Amino acid sequence: MNNAVAGFSKLSKKEKINWIANEYFSTPEEALNIIRNYWNSDEKLQQLHDEFIENTITNFYIPLGVAPNFLINGKYKTIPMAIEESSVVAAASKSAKYWATRGGFKATVINTEKIGQVHFTFNGDAEKLQSFFDQIKPKFFSDTQSITKNMQQRGGGILDIKLKDKRSLLENYFQLHATFETKDSMGANFINSCLEQFATTLKEEFQQSNLFSEDETIKVIMSILSNYVPNCLVRAEVSCPIEDLTEKHITNPQDFAERFVQAVQIAEVEPFRAVTHNKGIMNGVDAVILATGNDFRAVEAGVHAYASRNGQYASLSHAKIENGIFTFWLEIPLALGTVGGLTSLHPLVKLCLEMLEKPSAEELMQIVAVAGLAQNFAALRSLTTTGIQEGHMKMHLNNIINQFEANDEERQLIKAHFKKNTVSHSAVVEFIENLRK
Amino acid sequence: MNNAVAGFSKLSKKEKINWIANEYFSTPEEALNIIRNYWNSDEKLQQLHDEFIENTITNFYIPLGVAPNFLINGKYKTIPMAIEESSVVAAASKSAKYWATRGGFKATVINTEKIGQVHFTFNGDAEKLQSFFDQIKPKFFSDTQSITKNMQQRGGGILDIKLKDKRSLLENYFQLHATFETKDSMGANFINSCLEQFATTLKEEFQQSNLFSEDETIKVIMSILSNYVPNCLVRAEVSCPIEDLTEKHITNPQDFAERFVQAVQIAEVEPFRAVTHNKGIMNGVDAVILATGNDFRAVEAGVHAYASRNGQYASLSHAKIENGIFTFWLEIPLALGTVGGLTSLHPLVKLCLEMLEKPSAEELMQIVAVAGLAQNFAALRSLTTTGIQEGHMKMHLNNIINQFEANDEERQLIKAHFKKNTVSHSAVVEFIENLRK
Repeated sequence: MNNAVAGFSKLSKKEKINWIANEYFSTPEEALNIIRNYWNSDEKLQQLHDEFIENTITNFYIPLGVAPNFLINGKYKTIPMAIEESSVVAAASKSAKYWATRGGFKATVINTEKIGQVHFTFNGDAEKLQSFFDQIKPKFFSDTQSITKNMQQRGGGILDIKLKDKRSLLENYFQLHATFETKDSMGANFINSCLEQFATTLKEEFQQSNLFSEDETIKVIMSILSNYVPNCLVRAEVSCPIEDLTEKHITNPQDFAERFVQAVQIAEVEPFRAVTHNKGIMNGVDAVILATGNDFRAVEAGVHAYASRNGQYASLSHAKIENGIFTFWLEIPLALGTVGGLTSLHPLVKLCLEMLEKPSAEELMQIVAVAGLAQNFAALRSLTTTGIQEGHMKMHLNNIINQFEANDEERQLIKAHFKKNTVSHSAVVEFIENLRK
Repeated sequence: MNNAVAGFSKLSKKEKINWIANEYFSTPEEALNIIRNYWNSDEKLQQLHDEFIENTITNFYIPLGVAPNFLINGKYKTIPMAIEESSVVAAASKSAKYWATRGGFKATVINTEKIGQVHFTFNGDAEKLQSFFDQIKPKFFSDTQSITKNMQQRGGGILDIKLKDKRSLLENYFQLHATFETKDSMGANFINSCLEQFATTLKEEFQQSNLFSEDETIKVIMSILSNYVPNCLVRAEVSCPIEDLTEKHITNPQDFAERFVQAVQIAEVEPFRAVTHNKGIMNGVDAVILATGNDFRAVEAGVHAYASRNGQYASLSHAKIENGIFTFWLEIPLALGTVGGLTSLHPLVKLCLEMLEKPSAEELMQIVAVAGLAQNFAALRSLTTTGIQEGHMKMHLNNIINQFEANDEERQLIKAHFKKNTVSHSAVVEFIENLRK
């Protein structure tokens, strides 16, 4: 127990899992069995998955579900969702079906600009630096031609490079602030490669320039893309006359709409609520992000920073009633790819993208934003009517039943009982224990 | 193509995948094969995973890797990480090994308070509402006794309930703002169940009270926990004398430390950098969150909102040089569970928790924070020295090789070539294409 290990990364997969099993498990053979149970029987496929990351021991299962009936800009979509949380897919499906008969979802890409920066210090005359920059600016483009060639053929590339004086923030701090269009790729590798070349060019040209005195020096701190992409923005919206909101469980549509708008307003002004409100949006967003091979950490960071852009963390979605029309919408920044990265490697990602009819990155932005809005609608609908627990605990009931490995007869008795009674973890446990007495 | 579907959730799994395959795939049998390839051959195990969510069609694989040699508060840990992004596990392992010989990671839980709110409107006299609240406050505790009983036995429960006047934000807006201690469970169901009971009690007591006039009414909008938990906080830290930072690739430790601190300062003052900086932290955090069955959307929302708490989105980690000592640390809010939810259901989550020697929620908070700090250290180290692309593209090389299904001979030639040459997607593709000519 409790030891360091040398040369672990060099061990074979078998040696790695043996070490772990012997080091941390009282019954190593049992641990090994669980690990192996999750391997794919197709060795080549398993190797593919192993090589996505390092020190892979097995495949972590996230359930892949589907939510059909999403009418988006007039077309029906079935949205693949990879998520471990119960009730998210059910909620998405319910929202989809509800809005399909009320005009569906409208989604628009507002813009698609991505950002990267070279952070550096310069201890000299800023005006000289500016004229130096203006002079060498074409060099940044020409020195990156081997990197940008393919991207340009696809209609993307470097949009602009600016010198920014950031000395009000930090001593001697300047930036090259560059913007990019990366079309259907997320573009992280492309942008970072460009930026590192910008840094090299900057240093080389500075050395060769005779504009500066001996005392004036430049030091590159780092070159890296930004996951904050407020100009890579998509909007999703639903809208209908208030009376059309009526449904079996919405008998007073005016009251429903007012409570709904009030709930959104609370999330607009109260950060403690806004965080959970947006978390609900991200349940829908991340499930599609994962299923389509995109990076949810990048998306999460960018989206939540956007939620705080006005100085206080606030709701990403908004709602209004105007002239008898109920409208609910959100705008979120999403830097996504449908080519490159995992999209062409993970067989299930390929499958999910085909299920979505091979969307462009812009189409995927729309689908993801819609999934987020649908999720938010379902959550607010529950919260402002029956409360969140009723639906959630019903979903959760299955999980508790599985935990106790209930047989078919027990399952039926439990489900019958909790159709009429409130589900709580302890109530279900108590009921099962009584059944088995 | 492009149709709505009725009663989808009622279909069997087989019927669901058949519908999808026929609706969206030109070769339905191929799609069905891919979906089935990812099923577990153990039918009972597969059923367990299917029932975690709704409309499950198969298991989405996220690679589960391990990062050994994490010396945390004097004990070695091997940290399980579920993540699809290459180089994250390698970076974590590298940081772990580096700091293991420099005193290791120190982690401390600062506090563990969770929060939930009942949002309501009241159109009358606020002073009367306050005295009404003071009077009925014990009722909130007694009415939730059946829910809080088990939690109290484990040392948790409702900590306090306050009435908050929020009319400066929104007309007639008030809250019951409650704090909770939920011990080793994340506590979402517990908190939401308490809150919904608070709402019921509030309405019932209001009806029965004779304090209010006929015109004074109360309307509950919603009852829900907050994922913003600034008082559920953990700190992780590394520290050593500057000269001890020396390593094969760090020959000038003073310069390294200064550049590192500067890079952190940039993330403290520049939001475009802060977002990506924190995204790197979350690469480590989320990988452990997923592997231990916790909810990464909840954690992400809370952490990023915390990053914006001072009015501008900023770095979660900090670094300083003081008296020749380099210190690097972070503080993040984390509401985690090691019991309840998926932790007792998902066999791999159970395995990962056992690998971590069955941590309490507080111990898991420490491990997760350390994983985040380690990740951030590795990223900043790369960024401020060789640049991020060198390491990343080497890792990515394997993925590109797999994409082209290179045979063993090709593999060797490609790897040999790119030991000396810069890896870029197009350079590798070109090299492979030339090989095959």
